[in-house]
Amino acid sequence: MPRVDLNCDMGESFGRWSLGDDLGMMPYLTSVNIATGYHAGDPPTIRRTVAAAVRQGLAIGAHLAFPDLMGFGRRRMMIPAEDLEDYCLYQLGALQAFVRAAGGRLAHVKPHGALYVMASEDPAVAAAIARAVAKVDASLPLMLLTSAAADAVAAEGVRLVLEAFPDLHYDRTGKLVIEPVKKAWDPELVARRAVRMVLERKVAADDGTELDVDAVSLCLHGDAPNGPEIAEAVHRALTGHGIELAPLAVLLGSSAEGGRR
Amino acid sequence: MPRVDLNCDMGESFGRWSLGDDLGMMPYLTSVNIATGYHAGDPPTIRRTVAAAVRQGLAIGAHLAFPDLMGFGRRRMMIPAEDLEDYCLYQLGALQAFVRAAGGRLAHVKPHGALYVMASEDPAVAAAIARAVAKVDASLPLMLLTSAAADAVAAEGVRLVLEAFPDLHYDRTGKLVIEPVKKAWDPELVARRAVRMVLERKVAADDGTELDVDAVSLCLHGDAPNGPEIAEAVHRALTGHGIELAPLAVLLGSSAEGGRR
Amino acid sequence: MPRVDLNCDMGESFGRWSLGDDLGMMPYLTSVNIATGYHAGDPPTIRRTVAAAVRQGLAIGAHLAFPDLMGFGRRRMMIPAEDLEDYCLYQLGALQAFVRAAGGRLAHVKPHGALYVMASEDPAVAAAIARAVAKVDASLPLMLLTSAAADAVAAEGVRLVLEAFPDLHYDRTGKLVIEPVKKAWDPELVARRAVRMVLERKVAADDGTELDVDAVSLCLHGDAPNGPEIAEAVHRALTGHGIELAPLAVLLGSSAEGGRR
Amino acid sequence: MPRVDLNCDMGESFGRWSLGDDLGMMPYLTSVNIATGYHAGDPPTIRRTVAAAVRQGLAIGAHLAFPDLMGFGRRRMMIPAEDLEDYCLYQLGALQAFVRAAGGRLAHVKPHGALYVMASEDPAVAAAIARAVAKVDASLPLMLLTSAAADAVAAEGVRLVLEAFPDLHYDRTGKLVIEPVKKAWDPELVARRAVRMVLERKVAADDGTELDVDAVSLCLHGDAPNGPEIAEAVHRALTGHGIELAPLAVLLGSSAEGGRR
Repeated sequence: MPRVDLNCDMGESFGRWSLGDDLGMMPYLTSVNIATGYHAGDPPTIRRTVAAAVRQGLAIGAHLAFPDLMGFGRRRMMIPAEDLEDYCLYQLGALQAFVRAAGGRLAHVKPHGALYVMASEDPAVAAAIARAVAKVDASLPLMLLTSAAADAVAAEGVRLVLEAFPDLHYDRTGKLVIEPVKKAWDPELVARRAVRMVLERKVAADDGTELDVDAVSLCLHGDAPNGPEIAEAVHRALTGHGIELAPLAVLLGSSAEGGRR
Repeated sequence: MPRVDLNCDMGESFGRWSLGDDLGMMPYLTSVNIATGYHAGDPPTIRRTVAAAVRQGLAIGAHLAFPDLMGFGRRRMMIPAEDLEDYCLYQLGALQAFVRAAGGRLAHVKPHGALYVMASEDPAVAAAIARAVAKVDASLPLMLLTSAAADAVAAEGVRLVLEAFPDLHYDRTGKLVIEPVKKAWDPELVARRAVRMVLERKVAADDGTELDVDAVSLCLHGDAPNGPEIAEAVHRALTGHGIELAPLAVLLGSSAEGGRR
Repeated sequence: MPRVDLNCDMGESFGRWSLGDDLGMMPYLTSVNIATGYHAGDPPTIRRTVAAAVRQGLAIGAHLAFPDLMGFGRRRMMIPAEDLEDYCLYQLGALQAFVRAAGGRLAHVKPHGALYVMASEDPAVAAAIARAVAKVDASLPLMLLTSAAADAVAAEGVRLVLEAFPDLHYDRTGKLVIEPVKKAWDPELVARRAVRMVLERKVAADDGTELDVDAVSLCLHGDAPNGPEIAEAVHRALTGHGIELAPLAVLLGSSAEGGRR
Repeated sequence: MPRVDLNCDMGESFGRWSLGDDLGMMPYLTSVNIATGYHAGDPPTIRRTVAAAVRQGLAIGAHLAFPDLMGFGRRRMMIPAEDLEDYCLYQLGALQAFVRAAGGRLAHVKPHGALYVMASEDPAVAAAIARAVAKVDASLPLMLLTSAAADAVAAEGVRLVLEAFPDLHYDRTGKLVIEPVKKAWDPELVARRAVRMVLERKVAADDGTELDVDAVSLCLHGDAPNGPEIAEAVHRALTGHGIELAPLAVLLGSSAEGGRR
């Protein structure tokens, strides 16, 4: 039976500023990635987001970022690997305290924004993140876009897993094309792309190129104007096609399918 | 046999800026309070400070502060108790990750600057901190200047312990008089005050008033121009008077003496 | 002919986070107060907000705040007066550069959030702000809630002017009751309160107490769910009652009415 | 008669943290570059540094940086040019307010750290800075390491001028080799390099390669352990060799020699 994890970035509000319909998305997901204060997510936001995720039984991941509130973590920063590892450990520890206080446990790690892109391209960046993960709990999988850093991450004793994005544009090389402000996508279109990513392991790039998909998780976006509508359609289509939704721990524990292969 | 803990605030550098002779102070101490990033202490500074403390076998406490780098946490901020609790939990978790990664364990909690003063005066502030401590580990003692918040802290299941400051001025009401930039004190004077704090449980305020001291720990300052010299003199005088130096865990575990009485 | 200024706080977005319908409010206003980066307002937001205000011919004021992004400048901070003056001068200069680059000129100054409340209560705080204003341009009026600091502000050579809030609750002592997140008010109710503030110089507190109003400006809120609808209703009601809308410079220049009396 | 400007980066303290012996350096300089809050320099530090520079009659430049306190502005950030221009304008305006309040006027602009290196390499970065400068005062020269961006800067109506570093290492391509923490250099060695830079327009790279120097200003470092000693030696050697020390405005105003050629 085909299976997939369905994740969404969350807790990206900050103080007076709200972003994303976290509560509207949660019913359709299996995992959430919660911002840890560096690109978004002040401590009260972390607490509330963690509490809601624990209530909904969702797997909680740390959404690690560059220290760049003004740029929402979307700008590349050339940070020495040792400092970057420290930044990641700091964020991991901070989030973990909230997760434990809420009776949950940290389940995975996913970098955000420019750090995500850099870690997906540059094994040295992914390795720095992996070293921080290993210091907290080497069993936490590290979620990225490509397997370019698979060896570097494995060398730190951490498992790399891949995700795909049914509601984002890909260019012909498989790179994501990020919209500065998320626009509404047609829910049925996203749902079809999601189903195809799981069953056919393919997605069409913007120019029509067929790209291979090798993902154990699909990521949706709660800051789209119609995020919950999309999530509902994706959830319905996946289960309607007999695809089981399950968090990473289940997928990785019970199957040789997931993660880096 | 009289006993006391000897602590110092540490890890108060930030990025390019250095502050305090941490390594010079460590040989004379039993405990350190490490800044957690809100008033000082970027992640690489935390890592280095924790590593040095673990190497020296020192008990490590979290030095929690208001989010105010520009004011070094020394300015009162009127933060709702629930948010303050979240800020403390965030800092505790972040530091704890570094301590565990270095093979140590968190041993106590001490607020910094304006948060320290406010928690020592206002039970609601101390209780907010104590709630965060309880979420991490209720066995971690909370160190403050006075026992005004003893009931509020105990109500959260946390133990309040008191410290005294041989190298700071007290006014006649027992309040500390903080120097914006720490000046050199005569090491022998500080040493005599320290010994008297332990053996006679007294200290003279600036106007000569004799104040009662009820402290299980003495705090020295590493940002004084002659901090290590003072620490060496205090250590020598205390041991020379037959006073045993031991971290809080030892003092509180083996004696009904310590903490709030 | 009765006259009044109609102002609104603006430019309170920050990076990825949007707040307030600035463009929706502008057609109904005579003045705007633009955030300067300390509680909100990153530089691109400042640029865009200033440009829109200049296009609409609105008077531009500096909306000065405590350095507290996480608390949106709404939390009291006990900052020494000299440092506070420096913080204000920094913000004034930064905003002024954008205003000049857009071909406008700074027209007034208004503190934000906790700084606004403290300056309206404590002459020492208002005086610190006024000293910064005087260093830039002593002819810029300083807008506050009460005249408690009138003498202190005048002593610095700056003119204090008062505003009133038709869309906020007042308690019986004339203090504002701030909603953490702005709720929708009935536009016609706000419009009636606004007209009464100008023509009768009265407003009802929440408990029915009649309060005197001595304001040259009325402030509306663009972060209300129906901010533009309210602004349209207020603008229509004021002009419908023969009240002329004009920015502070016009009101203060041509009349002995305005400001502190 | 040969002439040169002698500049130093200043005002790089922040809150509780001090850096650099600004007052010790000033007697030997003609210009200072003052940090504007993004990599260092809180407002009270700006005020004190500007006041000292005005008292000493030094030309004051804005030392613009990336928004990165934790990295001291030394880490490359990939910021869109339009946002970068806004960041620069913000910093220019903030500093200018202090300079004017102290009775001085802004005299030049120099980027800091990673922004300096990127602007010296990439005309698009230099052009973004130049556009911000032009919005404030196009007559302010922009100081960089190389003339790679000369056309881009000139296209914005701003004059590019070059500086050289007698107390830094150059690699064979003319790039600077930055020490994370400034070490002591032999004052006489630095002095000889400075004199040679002016009279022979040459400097030796670390591998002995002779590099051409085309600079109207020499930059010394106040965060070296012996910064003032070096500055005194350089000042003495330059004047002893009949070289006149003068700020950029004098050099550029009275001579066709200076700036980009």
